Amino acid sequence: MDASAEVDHLAAERSAARFDVEAMKVAWAGSRHAVEVGDRMARLVASDPVFRKDNRTMLSRKDLFKDTLRKAAHAWKRIVELRLTEEEAGMLRLYVDQPGYVDLHWGMFVPAIKGQGTEEQQKKWLPMAYKFQIIGCYAQTELGHGSNVQGLETTATFDPKTDEFVIHSPTLTSSKWWPGGLGKASTHAVVYARLITEGKDYGIHGFIVQLRSLEDHSPLPGITLGDIGGKFGSGAYNSMDNGVLRFDHVRIPRDQMLMRLSQVTREGKYVHSDVPKQLLYGTMVFVRQTIVADASKALSRAVCIAVRYSAIRKQFGSQDGGPETKVLDYKTQQSRLFPLLASAYAFRFVGDWLKWLYMDVTQKLEAKDYSTLQEAHACTAGLKAVTTSATADAIEECRKLCGGHGYLNSSGLPELFAVYVPACTYEGDNIVLLLQVARILMKTLSQLTSGKQPVGTMAYMGNVQYLMQCKCAVNTAEDWLNPVAIQEAFEARALRMAVNCAQNIGQAANQEEGFYERSPDLLEAAVAHIQLVIVTKFISKVRPNAVALVDAFNYTDHYLGSVLGRYDGNVYPALYEEAWKDPLNETVVPEGYHEYLRPLLKQQLKLSRL
Amino acid sequence: MDASAEVDHLAAERSAARFDVEAMKVAWAGSRHAVEVGDRMARLVASDPVFRKDNRTMLSRKDLFKDTLRKAAHAWKRIVELRLTEEEAGMLRLYVDQPGYVDLHWGMFVPAIKGQGTEEQQKKWLPMAYKFQIIGCYAQTELGHGSNVQGLETTATFDPKTDEFVIHSPTLTSSKWWPGGLGKASTHAVVYARLITEGKDYGIHGFIVQLRSLEDHSPLPGITLGDIGGKFGSGAYNSMDNGVLRFDHVRIPRDQMLMRLSQVTREGKYVHSDVPKQLLYGTMVFVRQTIVADASKALSRAVCIAVRYSAIRKQFGSQDGGPETKVLDYKTQQSRLFPLLASAYAFRFVGDWLKWLYMDVTQKLEAKDYSTLQEAHACTAGLKAVTTSATADAIEECRKLCGGHGYLNSSGLPELFAVYVPACTYEGDNIVLLLQVARILMKTLSQLTSGKQPVGTMAYMGNVQYLMQCKCAVNTAEDWLNPVAIQEAFEARALRMAVNCAQNIGQAANQEEGFYERSPDLLEAAVAHIQLVIVTKFISKVRPNAVALVDAFNYTDHYLGSVLGRYDGNVYPALYEEAWKDPLNETVVPEGYHEYLRPLLKQQLKLSRL
Repeated sequence: MDASAEVDHLAAERSAARFDVEAMKVAWAGSRHAVEVGDRMARLVASDPVFRKDNRTMLSRKDLFKDTLRKAAHAWKRIVELRLTEEEAGMLRLYVDQPGYVDLHWGMFVPAIKGQGTEEQQKKWLPMAYKFQIIGCYAQTELGHGSNVQGLETTATFDPKTDEFVIHSPTLTSSKWWPGGLGKASTHAVVYARLITEGKDYGIHGFIVQLRSLEDHSPLPGITLGDIGGKFGSGAYNSMDNGVLRFDHVRIPRDQMLMRLSQVTREGKYVHSDVPKQLLYGTMVFVRQTIVADASKALSRAVCIAVRYSAIRKQFGSQDGGPETKVLDYKTQQSRLFPLLASAYAFRFVGDWLKWLYMDVTQKLEAKDYSTLQEAHACTAGLKAVTTSATADAIEECRKLCGGHGYLNSSGLPELFAVYVPACTYEGDNIVLLLQVARILMKTLSQLTSGKQPVGTMAYMGNVQYLMQCKCAVNTAEDWLNPVAIQEAFEARALRMAVNCAQNIGQAANQEEGFYERSPDLLEAAVAHIQLVIVTKFISKVRPNAVALVDAFNYTDHYLGSVLGRYDGNVYPALYEEAWKDPLNETVVPEGYHEYLRPLLKQQLKLSRL
Repeated sequence: MDASAEVDHLAAERSAARFDVEAMKVAWAGSRHAVEVGDRMARLVASDPVFRKDNRTMLSRKDLFKDTLRKAAHAWKRIVELRLTEEEAGMLRLYVDQPGYVDLHWGMFVPAIKGQGTEEQQKKWLPMAYKFQIIGCYAQTELGHGSNVQGLETTATFDPKTDEFVIHSPTLTSSKWWPGGLGKASTHAVVYARLITEGKDYGIHGFIVQLRSLEDHSPLPGITLGDIGGKFGSGAYNSMDNGVLRFDHVRIPRDQMLMRLSQVTREGKYVHSDVPKQLLYGTMVFVRQTIVADASKALSRAVCIAVRYSAIRKQFGSQDGGPETKVLDYKTQQSRLFPLLASAYAFRFVGDWLKWLYMDVTQKLEAKDYSTLQEAHACTAGLKAVTTSATADAIEECRKLCGGHGYLNSSGLPELFAVYVPACTYEGDNIVLLLQVARILMKTLSQLTSGKQPVGTMAYMGNVQYLMQCKCAVNTAEDWLNPVAIQEAFEARALRMAVNCAQNIGQAANQEEGFYERSPDLLEAAVAHIQLVIVTKFISKVRPNAVALVDAFNYTDHYLGSVLGRYDGNVYPALYEEAWKDPLNETVVPEGYHEYLRPLLKQQLKLSRL
């Protein structure tokens, strides 16, 4: 994998693999073409000194941000110079592996205009965005308002005198807070605000607002902008300028309201278009499918590091001074590590299936068939919640499985954890999402009595009579190798938990009260349902081919960014070398010795009089 | 609590408390005296600008280290000037709240000499250490060797010609790695190495080795020293100079071997003293008791932040545009947060009990009574493992319970997590410790048949006949308020898990094989046993007085270091102000704009020719 690898310290493990790693790479990547493009882009990035990332955790916040600007500009330059396809450009950005304004520009700003803008608006704004003549972000959450979008306080009041909206932040808690790319980089934003016209509040709508001068990047009049400060980890998400934004009666032309679903007329009338609101769900399914795919990427990186290092690291096991046992051979290590390895593959496969679901939902929506929308919504919301939570926990578990050295930045794991955990919160807090799943489960159960048959991933609930009374047919450990037994066990578990919740809610004074009282149980029922979905998409077994299974992820050492997870397994010399790069090692005697250590040791601390 | 608090946004919660917070402060601190000393030292630190810590996460590694040196020197100055008692000095260092070489000097170097040095050695070295004429650390772990101390590779070979030991690092993996204070600050270390004399390897022993010149702090000849590089978090443990150390045939006088338990004579003979080796266990019990106490401190800080902020933060719950519901009132929040609050108190009480256990063990050891040693060892090892793992997970859970803002450094939680997690690894990896507990559980069970009655925290195992067949008497939720029912349920659970393991091991070809095969189950049995110990020491119930219960921890805003956990609850203005302190906000237009953003926006990126 890495050109510098001369001796392969993991060769013995690799030669013991009982499957074809090259074929598994294709299965992991999705196609031979995807393997080829990924390989090519990964090498392009790894071989370019501008994309160096091994020093990232040692940069100050300002230098880290500047480094991110530099990498983004350089990546764009390479994309244009090499005339990369959209697929290639996406892969290149993935391997640059540093959060930055570009992610929000392509991932949120452009899709928001595409999804919510009229054709005219798309024609005006998208070409500028595609060429980076403007940089955009997505300004939704506020200092006092996160998950509850309907509680946002920013206002957009239509002024018919001038044909403008007045964007305003009426309170401190209405300050926009968190949007990535907002703090320092973006020139524009899609801003979500309460639309007020003719004295009436029509709720939250999106508006394109220019924030900074295109001449000198200074904030426009009435706009206060800044970064919201340091975040978890040394580097991690600190390369991103998550921002704060306040408006003091900022005026924008009426046609900068995103008008695909509803409009305000020249006279100030609020009118709906004939585009169905449900279309927005399609976008949500798309974004969440991306997040599930990202979960499998993050988890697979952590597992790759932990498996490789566990095959190198030796500890105990020798009574007579002989070589110690490699920790990968300990049951306690295997019982914690192998389920995570299996999960990485499971999340990958369920993520692939979500791509199909997205296409299916889109086609149905275009045909105005909304019959599977709720089930698809529950499925994607739940999968987002379960896979991101499991991945965050799993990365930290992998770090612990690497022992003390996992705590060093050079292991790559602290940064991987710190950069990943926000996924549990953004695009829907996981608890909020799971409660939405639980609501749909309860509704589906209650509709069973009226004969409405559940569809898709909820179809098993129609089998309620059988699943409530069936007995597990498993008697021996081998019986668990039968996928039918596993699937039925997960189905019975999920259904029984849901039915139990429904019965308890039924005994409450009213449904809302019951839902409130039972919400912790409902969370568990929702998780059980989603785990069933994952297991269904991944009924197979991961055998002890651990090193080869992580090799199939096909990660370069540059992308993996971990001394412990090196392809060649030559961990200890690399750890040793890495240590000397710390800024503290620039001088043998540390700065501060003359001021603070020498006076102490020489008993010359000047004590002021009491 | 904080002088700057003008309006108390949490006053309503506080006035609803159904217990006396001042009395609880005494219970938490241990005595009225402890509350008073704690208050005084906390205020001394919080009011001294040198001890400022709100900018810590923004410092570069070098500046952070220098800041730590400065704080340590200043703390020492204040301790001497104010003629503080040992108790007061310890409290002051606690509230300075920044890991540094001082921790290892007082916590490991001095105790090692006290515990393993002869009276003569103590007389020579301790006065210098007490006055900081030398700074010491504890050099045990190596690049390739952590938990398995017997596997260390560093050698100390006696040379009878010169009456010296030759300390040497024969391999790369024998490099000392991780010792705190070693990298840049320490002048001396207690070094653990294989003692070799007369051609024979006598295993691991401690040696006092001078590392750096007392004149100019440069490493002595033959000694390579450095810092091992950045670690998890922005500030966190990066204030500590965890170090790397290699010896190239470094000579030290024979009398720098720590000789309390065994000596090497002038002729090179290895002899044991009459001091029983078991005395070392006393030190271990002491250190682990400290770690359990630290767990309750760290957990209580996290819980304090999460509870206060949950009482301020509002979300959803209003159907008609009225005020939203505070998240502390959600069942899903309560069911995750309140068990952590209860655990903070439980760990505190079990930690207090461990102080008693330490005294008890010490007295028995002095009377050469080793009957409770094994049980005490299992108990402290297990409590160390369970409380540190639970605390690390709980801090991260508290961070998630604070929503998106918990991800900001100004919440204090990312740093609290990053600085705490190493406790799961140092002083005994938690998995390794739990397997030791499991071994003692299995041994205790097997000795039951020969009539040997278990003692102390294992006494319940003597009740095996009853506990294996008893039925839970709980029928209603209220029945769980009976502490006897809770205790018995935990006893039956722990015992049944242990017996199950023992039976399965009995079926294996041999005991070691069985232990290996069943090690994941054994881990769980050990955890169940330790949870029983904790529950036994904390049979009581935490009622919904959440804000008052965290107030009883009596933490200043300085020590807590969290914008979200402020005593006065004035969260949002503080978050807003904090953001502007980020170095990125020093300029409105960021550094890098002219190089990397403007050329992009102006479409002037210079593309090299293809």
